Amino acid sequence: MKTICVGFLGCGNIGCGVWKLLSEFGQDILHRAQVKFKIKRILVRDIHKKRDETVPEELLTTDPAQITDDPEIQMVLEFMGGEEPATQYMLRALEMGKTVVTANKMALALNWHILQEAAEKNNCGLYYEAAVCGAIPIIRTTVDSLQSNRIEEMMGIVNGTTNYILTRMSQEGGDYADVLRDAQRLGLAEPDPTSDVEGFDAAYKLSILSSLAFHARVPFDVIYRQGITQVSSADIAYGKELGYTLKLLAIAKRDGGVIDARVHPTFIPNAHPLASVNGSFNAIFLHGHACDDMMLFGRGAGSAPTASAVVSDMLYAVSRDTPRHPTFQNSDKLASGLTVTNDWRCSFYVRLNASDRPGVLAHITACLGQEGISIRNLMQRDAVDGHAQIVMITHDAGECAIRKALAAIDSADVRVESMIRVEAK
Amino acid sequence: MKTICVGFLGCGNIGCGVWKLLSEFGQDILHRAQVKFKIKRILVRDIHKKRDETVPEELLTTDPAQITDDPEIQMVLEFMGGEEPATQYMLRALEMGKTVVTANKMALALNWHILQEAAEKNNCGLYYEAAVCGAIPIIRTTVDSLQSNRIEEMMGIVNGTTNYILTRMSQEGGDYADVLRDAQRLGLAEPDPTSDVEGFDAAYKLSILSSLAFHARVPFDVIYRQGITQVSSADIAYGKELGYTLKLLAIAKRDGGVIDARVHPTFIPNAHPLASVNGSFNAIFLHGHACDDMMLFGRGAGSAPTASAVVSDMLYAVSRDTPRHPTFQNSDKLASGLTVTNDWRCSFYVRLNASDRPGVLAHITACLGQEGISIRNLMQRDAVDGHAQIVMITHDAGECAIRKALAAIDSADVRVESMIRVEAK
Repeated sequence: MKTICVGFLGCGNIGCGVWKLLSEFGQDILHRAQVKFKIKRILVRDIHKKRDETVPEELLTTDPAQITDDPEIQMVLEFMGGEEPATQYMLRALEMGKTVVTANKMALALNWHILQEAAEKNNCGLYYEAAVCGAIPIIRTTVDSLQSNRIEEMMGIVNGTTNYILTRMSQEGGDYADVLRDAQRLGLAEPDPTSDVEGFDAAYKLSILSSLAFHARVPFDVIYRQGITQVSSADIAYGKELGYTLKLLAIAKRDGGVIDARVHPTFIPNAHPLASVNGSFNAIFLHGHACDDMMLFGRGAGSAPTASAVVSDMLYAVSRDTPRHPTFQNSDKLASGLTVTNDWRCSFYVRLNASDRPGVLAHITACLGQEGISIRNLMQRDAVDGHAQIVMITHDAGECAIRKALAAIDSADVRVESMIRVEAK
Repeated sequence: MKTICVGFLGCGNIGCGVWKLLSEFGQDILHRAQVKFKIKRILVRDIHKKRDETVPEELLTTDPAQITDDPEIQMVLEFMGGEEPATQYMLRALEMGKTVVTANKMALALNWHILQEAAEKNNCGLYYEAAVCGAIPIIRTTVDSLQSNRIEEMMGIVNGTTNYILTRMSQEGGDYADVLRDAQRLGLAEPDPTSDVEGFDAAYKLSILSSLAFHARVPFDVIYRQGITQVSSADIAYGKELGYTLKLLAIAKRDGGVIDARVHPTFIPNAHPLASVNGSFNAIFLHGHACDDMMLFGRGAGSAPTASAVVSDMLYAVSRDTPRHPTFQNSDKLASGLTVTNDWRCSFYVRLNASDRPGVLAHITACLGQEGISIRNLMQRDAVDGHAQIVMITHDAGECAIRKALAAIDSADVRVESMIRVEAK
């Protein structure tokens, strides 16, 4: 039987979840893995704050050094969120020779190279299953189970808040602002929802996942990012009629030395495995050259599911004699030998508001034809007040080509209302 | 850089897949994991048989000892299938101190305890990701990522052949026998399909998965097993009308010391994540007390996907200083402290052929009421030749109760045509 002395950095929602899981399930873990996790010290901002779990007050401290610098503490769990001071505290813990387990996608995505360097230098473990998609074992799967594969593509619903909002908009036809307010009332969206609805959260996760999948650093700042704030219920409804479901997807594809990495609202066919991932669930769909299509689905957030991932990392760390690190050159720059393209190819959904006049459709098709874009589906609705809604889905085309075509289409007679990318495969 | 000398037992579909993956992808693996797998010898039945891959004839042998007893060979990959002689050869390899990686669910399910004992005694690795659901990392997930969970339930589509047949029957309304013939013609079902269509294959996999999930041996012979040979397209169609999809599910549930483990055709709601797993894909849905719902989806068979799992096991084995074994008491008997019930609770779909006479429905409902079973949905179709089709779905009830009720219902006026279990949660 081994005893591992543990310190927490932070004790909010996730910290309390880990406390609860270890309290209630510690005996089972001890019985099976022959390891006891002893929580020695917990860093908090306010010692007297009311918490979900009854954590003994004598464990609480407001001094990070009592955790990072305590020689008895072997493992530090970081649940603070945000880039700083979390990164500094983790660095200190690694420098002091401690294994670090973090649930912090932002700190990891932005400072992974520094953290990994410190971990390697001090021969410490650095684990982060909980930083990406909560309970879903996508980090372990990518690192351990898919090493036999050239991963060519990943597409994920990696943010529960936005998936909840889009699911409700799709099922009820509600407007974005109304559904967001509802989600905030239910605690499913933050009072300041920017990080979720503008796709930052998804882009942090995609940076981590795509780096592991491609064995090459894909930094946060090369990721194209578009949130869901401009999504209209009209587009969701038109897409539905055409057989598509709208999701905020984090997409990374690799073709030789060229990758594209992007977060944006995306239509996928209703029959795609990701299309039925509803509410606050997360899922990652991927394609490997040997494994073919694969999808992992589960709870991407929440106290207990995130604690599940944290404790699995703790057990994984203990089960290994030597720490496991990604083998690629970690850095804050795009891996050398790779280029990121913003001219990816996919299908495009386009909605136009056109004057109901002769020649308008000819103008539209001419502009598309000029860029070599052909139409797969077209739907024109009866004109109201002399204006018709034209909705179309193109065949595969380049991002730059569609932008050029839409710029040419936009005119006195035709307004481009929306353009949404379609992953139709 | 490490070189690991490898021997194959068998070189059929999977063996050729592993050969191909190592040939084409070996440089990538060497680059990343700093390990080179050198294939020294391959056991085959017929040296001159034409194979999918051009394997050099000088590597082939018909003598198993040239693999199991060669001191240079450190890792033995078993692709023979069937219980014997595969088990004996694997035992021999373990006794000779070699790591064993197997894709053989039957040999593992039936002789796991003997193999694990030999592996532990000789401090060798024994890995079997490829034995259950091909490329899907369900073994690694259960063993590494879900240790922080009390897994309460697993439900899997773990056999691609039967899922292909049921998907076609559901989408096209075809009869079982016709679709099976078609699947055989396409190579998706064996000439003798018994192991697949009678649920043996699924039960082997369920034995392995449930043992790992519950940390307690659930042997093959305690698993209730019913195949798909009696499934009628009429039931599939009626179920569809009521909002259900028919799948052959491998189900294991645990409630304290009582488990149920069963393979049978099952209706699930169309919105369940398993319902849209079509064709030859596999998926395992599970529920843990911390992780909540989770599903892993992917290719459960095929040369390349199975090779993906085999090679991931090889790399996992190499990455570990000490082999990793399940910690429960492995044996050929049900773990002590556990009991298996055949009186599980679920909903039931029932189809009756009833004379169109007064009192018949009263008889049916009385028999159900006698056993405390209440009806959730009921559908009665116009009588033809004086006989009406009555289709119903019950609320949750016990297996024994429904059987008693159906025995009482079955009479001169009412024929019980079919009973199919429904997992409605």
